[in-house]
Amino acid sequence: VSERRSLVGKPAEVIVTPALVLDPDALEANLTLMAEGFRGRPCRVRPHFKGHKCVTVAHRQLAAGSIAGITCAKLAEAEQCVAGGVRDVLVANQVVGEEKTRRLAALNRGATVRVAVDSLDNIAELGEAARQANVTIGVLVEVDIGMARCGVRPGPETLALAEVVTATEGLRFDGLQGYEGHAVMIPDPEERRRRVVEAMGPLTETRRALEAAGMPVRIVSGGGTGTYDSTGKIEGIDEVQAGSYALMDAAYKKVRPEFAVARTVLTTVISVQDGYAIADVGSKGVGCEFGPPSVADHPEAEVVKVSEEHVKVVGLRARVGDRVTLIPSHGCTTNNLYRKMYVVKGGRIEDVWPIEGSGCVE
Amino acid sequence: VSERRSLVGKPAEVIVTPALVLDPDALEANLTLMAEGFRGRPCRVRPHFKGHKCVTVAHRQLAAGSIAGITCAKLAEAEQCVAGGVRDVLVANQVVGEEKTRRLAALNRGATVRVAVDSLDNIAELGEAARQANVTIGVLVEVDIGMARCGVRPGPETLALAEVVTATEGLRFDGLQGYEGHAVMIPDPEERRRRVVEAMGPLTETRRALEAAGMPVRIVSGGGTGTYDSTGKIEGIDEVQAGSYALMDAAYKKVRPEFAVARTVLTTVISVQDGYAIADVGSKGVGCEFGPPSVADHPEAEVVKVSEEHVKVVGLRARVGDRVTLIPSHGCTTNNLYRKMYVVKGGRIEDVWPIEGSGCVE
Repeated sequence: VSERRSLVGKPAEVIVTPALVLDPDALEANLTLMAEGFRGRPCRVRPHFKGHKCVTVAHRQLAAGSIAGITCAKLAEAEQCVAGGVRDVLVANQVVGEEKTRRLAALNRGATVRVAVDSLDNIAELGEAARQANVTIGVLVEVDIGMARCGVRPGPETLALAEVVTATEGLRFDGLQGYEGHAVMIPDPEERRRRVVEAMGPLTETRRALEAAGMPVRIVSGGGTGTYDSTGKIEGIDEVQAGSYALMDAAYKKVRPEFAVARTVLTTVISVQDGYAIADVGSKGVGCEFGPPSVADHPEAEVVKVSEEHVKVVGLRARVGDRVTLIPSHGCTTNNLYRKMYVVKGGRIEDVWPIEGSGCVE
Repeated sequence: VSERRSLVGKPAEVIVTPALVLDPDALEANLTLMAEGFRGRPCRVRPHFKGHKCVTVAHRQLAAGSIAGITCAKLAEAEQCVAGGVRDVLVANQVVGEEKTRRLAALNRGATVRVAVDSLDNIAELGEAARQANVTIGVLVEVDIGMARCGVRPGPETLALAEVVTATEGLRFDGLQGYEGHAVMIPDPEERRRRVVEAMGPLTETRRALEAAGMPVRIVSGGGTGTYDSTGKIEGIDEVQAGSYALMDAAYKKVRPEFAVARTVLTTVISVQDGYAIADVGSKGVGCEFGPPSVADHPEAEVVKVSEEHVKVVGLRARVGDRVTLIPSHGCTTNNLYRKMYVVKGGRIEDVWPIEGSGCVE
């Protein structure tokens, strides 16, 4: 807090690197664009916390409109959101084990924190935890719609689990989750749309079968930044779990050019040698699952190697001490590495936002 | 602290996953093996903090013997080591910019914290910071011995920088650093040894040239876990900056089978589907630069996909709730993701050690 006070209003030059920098205008433009895309439609956005792990960004997303609540990838993220005042969370993943199910139940004392399930054992322990805590936990059955990760098959398997959830005291069957993660990064928009429709068909069919069997389905949740415009238009889909649209990264920029890159990594050149420069961030400060970061404002420059604390940049005229801005290929894992983001506008530090969810906290 | 007290002595089953687990006997065996390898030789080990980022492990390394001090990859790590009582640190990297050079100088008030340099601009600002703080900063000129990252060329370029350091008030020319990072992972031991000798030749020649020119060289520092046995035997090399030997990982185990894997990631199975299981860690909890993690004790099992919060494992008979132990391919980036390590012996939690250096803290 005192560090924040001493930084606000200062020029960006005082930022010590490597540092995560947020462009607040780009963030607001992205939130507005997503909200407008859903205005007047029955489907809502449930923004994913995992892409930024910052409660302040989550509140901005809630304020932008067209919102169902927040999506989290794990229990610890949900705890941080609820502690920060978020009142409606879906943990879009399984929460397994005695301690974690107990903590999930406790969260439901002051908020609505739903969870995805795909096994009988997990349903049983969630019910036990809910009864112990004297709460009801809302549950979505996770359906595998082609990604081959978590989730049971659409159709009878899903109906069977839904029946068990409905029959389990302490749990409330709220609906289905299906994530078309295998489609979100398909470069060709038409091919992507086709794969989305193909994936979502069995999910919405299963919804209708559940309703026909007398099990009301409040929520069918799925989708992401790569598929929001097609998934969000399919009848029977209630929520799109888009995350990356808020801050964006180099990988998503290729499939979603309509959103602006709002998050960058500010670095300093620490060494200049024949033909290349070295900047002071590496794989411990920038997520490289989708390749090395790009150099902002310098299309002629290229990161050719990433070590733990160094990136090697060719094609850049630089001196030791120069600042270089990088665009991560993968923003989600980048935010996971930092404790704070500098909000910078017009060359000045406007604010410093904590990244409550960073690090592998169980 | 109170969390630690409540956990010590409890069975490992209470550990909430994903969690970093340390085998203290394997750690001690690794430290002893490295110390014995250097006993009676002029060369010392300067263990690298970057591989574990844990001050408690650093102190164990210091206590094991044959030690020159600790190596750090960045200023923030050096600050954590000094705050934790380490008195001799080399930052094996450039520390650039007004604030960072000021902080480095301040560290030298109560400890010896040397730094590598490879540019005139950086030497000038380090001298300025040292004079302002009224301290002397010990400096190693970094020499590029084939890795093509930081460092100037061996020979005249290095001599020229050494002369400038010597002439800069506030700085003390202490010697040279050269890291044969391009050789440390070469699978064939003989080829690796040959490349080490080739890389180190120009470095030790430059040392002799400096001494012939009247510039005493106290320290020539380089090497790593992959090359410690050859680099540590070369005349004119004073320190080996080995790091990974302490905790090890799957990648280094291939080139260094004599050290034991002391660090693992404990996970829980959260979903079991036809032909595979999903465990509750992903790229936000295990460093995958050198490939997916291996499954400990189950050579028949294989991690075939890593998402942000999931690994997909084939060939493993498992139920939801089962524990699965993973061996990271890359330990350095794995420790960077956790705030603590559970020390587990005989199925009981012996201690919980903070990982002070984790996260991208500038």
